[in-house]
Amino acid sequence: MSALELQRYLHEHLPLTRAMGVTVVSVHEDEVRLQAPLAPNINHHATVFGGSASALAILAGWSLLHTRLASGGLPARLVIQRNTMEYERPIAGTFSARATFESPAAWPEFETLLRRRGRARITVPVVLEYGSIVAGRFSGQFVALAADAAAPG
Amino acid sequence: MSALELQRYLHEHLPLTRAMGVTVVSVHEDEVRLQAPLAPNINHHATVFGGSASALAILAGWSLLHTRLASGGLPARLVIQRNTMEYERPIAGTFSARATFESPAAWPEFETLLRRRGRARITVPVVLEYGSIVAGRFSGQFVALAADAAAPG
Repeated sequence: MSALELQRYLHEHLPLTRAMGVTVVSVHEDEVRLQAPLAPNINHHATVFGGSASALAILAGWSLLHTRLASGGLPARLVIQRNTMEYERPIAGTFSARATFESPAAWPEFETLLRRRGRARITVPVVLEYGSIVAGRFSGQFVALAADAAAPG
Repeated sequence: MSALELQRYLHEHLPLTRAMGVTVVSVHEDEVRLQAPLAPNINHHATVFGGSASALAILAGWSLLHTRLASGGLPARLVIQRNTMEYERPIAGTFSARATFESPAAWPEFETLLRRRGRARITVPVVLEYGSIVAGRFSGQFVALAADAAAPG
């Protein structure tokens, strides 16, 4: 799935991504990068609203897993279960969210478990950046349910 | 500050609240309740996008502190430092976020410290509700800096 295909998917299925002006910067096997401009995400301090920062991080984490599952021919329902977010610096302009894996083993372990049991959990770290400055750190736990498994309770 | 005044403030200063369709349900000394409809916050599973749920919780927590500071004649810059969010149930319609204090002592302790030192931290729990169902739980740590204190570093 290319950056443009992912962006089309987000804009079509998650209207808030259009309102936020989310664009997909790059999609790689082990890293997805999204960005958004300040204007639609501004707060009363003329910096980025924490809710927008959080939302972009969730989208980046979800996108990393979604595109990797798609490229592996492994359709699954992907849901966020919990997350933490640290807001380290105010953001006064266009900002980006870069999602990666915690370790080289994280994806293979997740994929093996998902194929074997139809269900698996994975934690995805995301760094929020404003220019070259780290502005925040997110960690999200997602659960995937293989498309042919029973629906979650 | 009334519910309508708070809603006007949010819509004027945080454009994403308009995009999300956020409305202020009620403002009390110890509880603020916001809500948002499904349509602008929908995801690819036809339920509420986690980023919208998170954003509404942050707004509710911030609003509880902002309105209480305003009613106490205590102008302060209020910033979120970190948060956790648990997504417990999918939300398939209008949802609300109810912010309260952790304990009866939480506000007086925060206010005393803010008046004395010009800076104080407080943790605000927020419950996400879909009808009468608890759909998620948020906990946000905010820092307040008295308006006449030095700007934060």
